[in-house]
Amino acid sequence: MTRFALTLEFDGSPFMGLQRQAHGPSVQQTVEDAAHAVTGEDVRMHAAGRTDTGVHALAMRAHIDVEKAFTPFRLMEALNARMRPHPVAVTACEAVADDWHARFSCLGRAYIYRIVNRRAPLTLERGKAWQVAKPLDAEAMHRAAQALVGRHDFTTFRSVHCQAQSPVKTLDRLDVRREGEQILIETEARSFLHHQVRSMTGCLAMVGMGRWRAEQVREALEARDRQALGLNAPPDGLYFVRAVYPED
Amino acid sequence: MTRFALTLEFDGSPFMGLQRQAHGPSVQQTVEDAAHAVTGEDVRMHAAGRTDTGVHALAMRAHIDVEKAFTPFRLMEALNARMRPHPVAVTACEAVADDWHARFSCLGRAYIYRIVNRRAPLTLERGKAWQVAKPLDAEAMHRAAQALVGRHDFTTFRSVHCQAQSPVKTLDRLDVRREGEQILIETEARSFLHHQVRSMTGCLAMVGMGRWRAEQVREALEARDRQALGLNAPPDGLYFVRAVYPED
Repeated sequence: MTRFALTLEFDGSPFMGLQRQAHGPSVQQTVEDAAHAVTGEDVRMHAAGRTDTGVHALAMRAHIDVEKAFTPFRLMEALNARMRPHPVAVTACEAVADDWHARFSCLGRAYIYRIVNRRAPLTLERGKAWQVAKPLDAEAMHRAAQALVGRHDFTTFRSVHCQAQSPVKTLDRLDVRREGEQILIETEARSFLHHQVRSMTGCLAMVGMGRWRAEQVREALEARDRQALGLNAPPDGLYFVRAVYPED
Repeated sequence: MTRFALTLEFDGSPFMGLQRQAHGPSVQQTVEDAAHAVTGEDVRMHAAGRTDTGVHALAMRAHIDVEKAFTPFRLMEALNARMRPHPVAVTACEAVADDWHARFSCLGRAYIYRIVNRRAPLTLERGKAWQVAKPLDAEAMHRAAQALVGRHDFTTFRSVHCQAQSPVKTLDRLDVRREGEQILIETEARSFLHHQVRSMTGCLAMVGMGRWRAEQVREALEARDRQALGLNAPPDGLYFVRAVYPED
């Protein structure tokens, strides 16, 4: 048996999320079905994160165990050939130690959230960003965001469907910057609660539009109450960009 | 009557091209139908360029004449509302002189062609770039491209369906550069022949893969024969990016 670490890029739009679902297509099922077709084995995929419906990945990390002998390159090529036309691609593949685990060995996750701040509807980037018509003050958003950095009870920013044992998480970074008509929000943590990045983004957008004072982000956090949430940003703009492991 | 200059962004994938066609949807029809719905008038759109099926635009310029009184902002908002869900957006609108013509006043056009140079299939950028698996040498492509700059008979790089009176065009710029896994080809001219950018891109890709020597681009040009063409790049990677007018 060889354990292969995969780097996955995918467009989340047609999927019910990364994790296998009984009621619709998922990234996990797409990879597992391709791996079964390639190896003849029942392959189970484990991933660093569980992204939602419509959430994208530039570099999700995952692993699969394969009995049959493959070079990493041959396995990557075969999986990519079998996954067409689904918008999932293996962009890197390597053999790793049997105790390397995409989820449990992962020490940190990073996401980027993309807002396109303009009045015109999206065309080429439809489904790939959140279009916000009202002008956003990126500097005000960045300042307000700093209240969320550190170890906090993030109950306000947690979906009712969240399965995490504790709402306490340590947010290592939450940076907001403007690039032309784009607002980019970059965040890193060991792990996130369900909907946490979209919920934080929604509240920062409230600040950016001038509908919330910066202090209201801190007040929402301290309320530890989902009702205190300003706005939940849509999945379209969210990208899983990096998983960090001990060897990195 | 007021003449309005429009800046259009569109995803070319679902259209039979910019120009109205009897047999399928077009960007022109989308804008004209929206303008008719908004004004009640039979509005005709004129554009700086006639892009093909699947070719995109970041900033196509066009104009329409409207009898009813509108501010540019109100007209832009109304057109954008009416064009949903088609992937066409008006990103800027201004009132211009009656003799300003999007096509005939245009002094120059610029395109960018995007290649994603990697083995993995495209996911998020599907239909938005040309994926080339074989490693491309961008510097060799750039050097070979310079043989095409200047005034030449571009018969080799012209579609059999091209309606231009003469195959002689002056190419002002053809630059190739690498940005990570992307190869970007930027080109400018007063005007282009039908399929010229895609045909030039295809030949440069032949050089980049090492299947053509740089001199073969010049030889293909001098052959003035469509049969000398190496490869025609797909529309997916082609973007109309700029139209230049006397006032710019």
